[in-house]
Amino acid sequence: MKIGFIGLGAMGLPIARALMGAGHTLAVYNRTAGRADELLGQGARRGESPADVAGDADALITMLADDRAVEDVMLRDDGEGALDALPAGRMHISMSTIGVGLAARLAELHAARGQGYISAPVFGRPIAAEQRKLWVIAAGPPEHIQRARPLFDAIGQGTRVVGKDPPMANVIKLAGNFTIAAMIETLGEAFALVRRSGIDAAGFLEIINTALFASPLYGNYGTIIAEERFEPAAFKLRLGLKDIRLALAAADAVSVPMPLASLLHDNLLAAVGRGRGEIDWSGLAQMLAENAGLGAHDSDHA
Amino acid sequence: MKIGFIGLGAMGLPIARALMGAGHTLAVYNRTAGRADELLGQGARRGESPADVAGDADALITMLADDRAVEDVMLRDDGEGALDALPAGRMHISMSTIGVGLAARLAELHAARGQGYISAPVFGRPIAAEQRKLWVIAAGPPEHIQRARPLFDAIGQGTRVVGKDPPMANVIKLAGNFTIAAMIETLGEAFALVRRSGIDAAGFLEIINTALFASPLYGNYGTIIAEERFEPAAFKLRLGLKDIRLALAAADAVSVPMPLASLLHDNLLAAVGRGRGEIDWSGLAQMLAENAGLGAHDSDHA
Amino acid sequence: MKIGFIGLGAMGLPIARALMGAGHTLAVYNRTAGRADELLGQGARRGESPADVAGDADALITMLADDRAVEDVMLRDDGEGALDALPAGRMHISMSTIGVGLAARLAELHAARGQGYISAPVFGRPIAAEQRKLWVIAAGPPEHIQRARPLFDAIGQGTRVVGKDPPMANVIKLAGNFTIAAMIETLGEAFALVRRSGIDAAGFLEIINTALFASPLYGNYGTIIAEERFEPAAFKLRLGLKDIRLALAAADAVSVPMPLASLLHDNLLAAVGRGRGEIDWSGLAQMLAENAGLGAHDSDHA
Amino acid sequence: MKIGFIGLGAMGLPIARALMGAGHTLAVYNRTAGRADELLGQGARRGESPADVAGDADALITMLADDRAVEDVMLRDDGEGALDALPAGRMHISMSTIGVGLAARLAELHAARGQGYISAPVFGRPIAAEQRKLWVIAAGPPEHIQRARPLFDAIGQGTRVVGKDPPMANVIKLAGNFTIAAMIETLGEAFALVRRSGIDAAGFLEIINTALFASPLYGNYGTIIAEERFEPAAFKLRLGLKDIRLALAAADAVSVPMPLASLLHDNLLAAVGRGRGEIDWSGLAQMLAENAGLGAHDSDHA
Repeated sequence: MKIGFIGLGAMGLPIARALMGAGHTLAVYNRTAGRADELLGQGARRGESPADVAGDADALITMLADDRAVEDVMLRDDGEGALDALPAGRMHISMSTIGVGLAARLAELHAARGQGYISAPVFGRPIAAEQRKLWVIAAGPPEHIQRARPLFDAIGQGTRVVGKDPPMANVIKLAGNFTIAAMIETLGEAFALVRRSGIDAAGFLEIINTALFASPLYGNYGTIIAEERFEPAAFKLRLGLKDIRLALAAADAVSVPMPLASLLHDNLLAAVGRGRGEIDWSGLAQMLAENAGLGAHDSDHA
Repeated sequence: MKIGFIGLGAMGLPIARALMGAGHTLAVYNRTAGRADELLGQGARRGESPADVAGDADALITMLADDRAVEDVMLRDDGEGALDALPAGRMHISMSTIGVGLAARLAELHAARGQGYISAPVFGRPIAAEQRKLWVIAAGPPEHIQRARPLFDAIGQGTRVVGKDPPMANVIKLAGNFTIAAMIETLGEAFALVRRSGIDAAGFLEIINTALFASPLYGNYGTIIAEERFEPAAFKLRLGLKDIRLALAAADAVSVPMPLASLLHDNLLAAVGRGRGEIDWSGLAQMLAENAGLGAHDSDHA
Repeated sequence: MKIGFIGLGAMGLPIARALMGAGHTLAVYNRTAGRADELLGQGARRGESPADVAGDADALITMLADDRAVEDVMLRDDGEGALDALPAGRMHISMSTIGVGLAARLAELHAARGQGYISAPVFGRPIAAEQRKLWVIAAGPPEHIQRARPLFDAIGQGTRVVGKDPPMANVIKLAGNFTIAAMIETLGEAFALVRRSGIDAAGFLEIINTALFASPLYGNYGTIIAEERFEPAAFKLRLGLKDIRLALAAADAVSVPMPLASLLHDNLLAAVGRGRGEIDWSGLAQMLAENAGLGAHDSDHA
Repeated sequence: MKIGFIGLGAMGLPIARALMGAGHTLAVYNRTAGRADELLGQGARRGESPADVAGDADALITMLADDRAVEDVMLRDDGEGALDALPAGRMHISMSTIGVGLAARLAELHAARGQGYISAPVFGRPIAAEQRKLWVIAAGPPEHIQRARPLFDAIGQGTRVVGKDPPMANVIKLAGNFTIAAMIETLGEAFALVRRSGIDAAGFLEIINTALFASPLYGNYGTIIAEERFEPAAFKLRLGLKDIRLALAAADAVSVPMPLASLLHDNLLAAVGRGRGEIDWSGLAQMLAENAGLGAHDSDHA
């Protein structure tokens, strides 16, 4: 399949690589051009603009950091935006973690142009993308989902089609990321309690993950937090804040109070205010530890 | 071993049964005497008072609902309390989920009498007790822990000795229960969001437990919540509230802010205020759903 | 001065009346036309559309319920929107409690058309508007503020000019409404505590307002809450929720965590979910009372 | 009247002074003996122990920092405690801000000894005590209240008798302090929002206190916060934390969720964890400002 691919960040690059490995033809565009070099050596074409990579694509894939970045490549008004360049009958697969409102808007704009639109955010860290072990959550018109299947299979270990209405996939992605952030807050508070009580955080983690959760995710995140390995960031705290912000917006739009999400929002925002925006989002636990008088409280990130 | 056993509730009865099954001799005491009948038929002796079952015990085990119940059997001032009846050199194994303060006080009182004191709360629901699959978290003097080992082995699939200072085990139990309550709140909020967005809660649960948590605990609790099966209660909401209250007290004593635990406390208290104290603590999610306008808001439990 | 006036709701009507009383000439527009009748009898002209009342106005005043309503009259794309109809050199005075983002956008759109834009939200309930006792918070270009002065003087007992950048006035209005909502939550929680302790809420209010606050606002709101007079609504709870939402958006835009505002948002949203959106926003306290087991918990509004 | 007076801290000393000024005879006791010197010069007698000052008192007054200090002077088991020394028929007037539980316990212990017990906490800062402008909140047996009246009149501008059950006065004092702390949080968050929006906090305060609250308390606290004058502390943050802790305990005892009080507890605790326990409790706002990225985040108090 001819794929236009926009966004070669931590997640985008391994996904693009996996698609090439599965035999697809890629035209790639990235704001920082150098990120594309590796793929060019393997036969990808460097696009000059979003419009350029969308112009002859069977499928346009975007994997970008936030709503603004997606709007910038799709809707820019300099004639180089991807929206108007994508031929009718082709589809846009949006893998970015974007808001429900933008997804709905894209669905509408594409439909008005006779193009297909699929929201297909993924669960999994960059390392999972490298290993084709992502989970794809897809929603959109069935005929386009059908055509996109081989692409999903090339990057993930499983795909869940959750409906015809694209924003449903975004809700699930946002609600899912909320559950991870909630786990971070939970472990951060519990670790502060046990540490101040003279108990080793790693030992406590081993106990609850053996006796209660039996969850690799708790094990992985818990170990990172217990060992305070927040750099380099696998997922930056300020991006985590963005996702909780989008989850709250999605909840507000359907009148759902989410007090724990509000707590996460406020704590992540305070962590950013205290200089921790660029470390891993599990580093939220470090601020909680300091609030408990653990660690030098002059250790706020500069 | 000759065991004095006090407290034949949902957890105590199967534990007592398992100890008898392992060949130990039991004298049992329960406020509601009828609960002991089954054990008497199998050779247990019915004690007349806490003091009676403690008087000739190698080990006294208590498994009661809360601090007050433990104080009542141990410290009552009518001469029938177990504390003064337990012979010097013997030990008290406290399996109840009690506060850190009471555990510290018991440790001191027992030490002053030349008795041993072990805090040994357990993780696991009644069904796990039936199947000898509990996890025992033990802290206390090593020589007593050593002697108590066969008892722990008779009821659990694993024992974690976490220190010489008994309250450490209580901190871990309370911090652990906090993490479960946090999971309930998390799922309750996420389910409200996805349901109001037109997405099936069970389907969402399947996705996040496949893609993210891979945790039987998330699966079990999540299914109960998605299916709203809050009765009969495996663990009553008002007891869950008690545990969060004890966790907050433990945290406050060591100057640890736990905003998520505070949120849980306030929400559980509101759920009690709205008539849900006797249903399963996962029923907290039902109140969250109603706050989101889901379900008839006149459905508060009468 | 010739004034185009859009929005004859609970606040708009008495303001329009006061302007006419001060000798200004009004052309009025309201979605529900009947609201204008009283003013027509006093010499106002009924406008056919937003554009109609803006077309020959020296000053266009809008006093509407929310962002959407303002967008609808200003930016509608049927040629009848007020934005393009207002002559260059004239000004738009926006008195509605709208978001910072929309205020910034309006400022830009008006500037591009050579029109002036002032944000001039007011503090005060409808009764204060009747009595020309509002407080006007104004921000915008000094020359336009200067020309608008007589209008502000006709409706309020004082005007505070807070800067040249219109959104600053909106921030102050939103932050101010946040402080009122915070007072409602505070009194609601305190009243629940004293009532459950056997103490009369009105008596407690009298004490703290004598000994501590000495504030008419505490007295007024506190009395309404103590007497549970939430209907008819002076300011509907769902509109209060809207304002807290806008305050949170303003805070998020400048990276300010406001955990109390988050709490207010979640509680107001739950109150709406429980059927209280149309009563006075001080009715939030009623939900808090029910959470404390006060009042029949089946009394949620149908 | 012969008064035994225990506790010559920031509040106790001016109260004792005012009582002497009104012609009463004082025997004083303070842990730090030097605090009494001034009063000795004016004719007070220095007591050797709590029992000493209570032994011949018509009324024993205690004004101490917290529950522990009150327990220490009243209930110490070295024979020097005031409880057993106070003659039957005399009364103990407890002015300290203590918990509801301790007040109930003292009421019971005194009654069992034929002594009277009045809870009479006060509202007002030390400066108000100097000027006999405190507000006294009293609850206890009417005959003792009657006899205590001249004492209350000597120190305050008004007395509110709120019931026969002493803890009711403590509930009101704690609920009142909660409302002040809530005001501090409210102003702290609102100031952070306006400051980050380019608006002067003092100017904002002037607007809301003119247009909305018209409250000297808002003016005083707001000015302290806007000017960041947190030292010397009029009321230390760690004592404010203590009061919120006692308010939460009182609320929990009667099943009242107080989410805003929980928020205050957690934020005050974090402020202590970040080194601010000894500054004025309005300094909570400083931590909120830092969470918003205002001020050097390396400014946490060492």
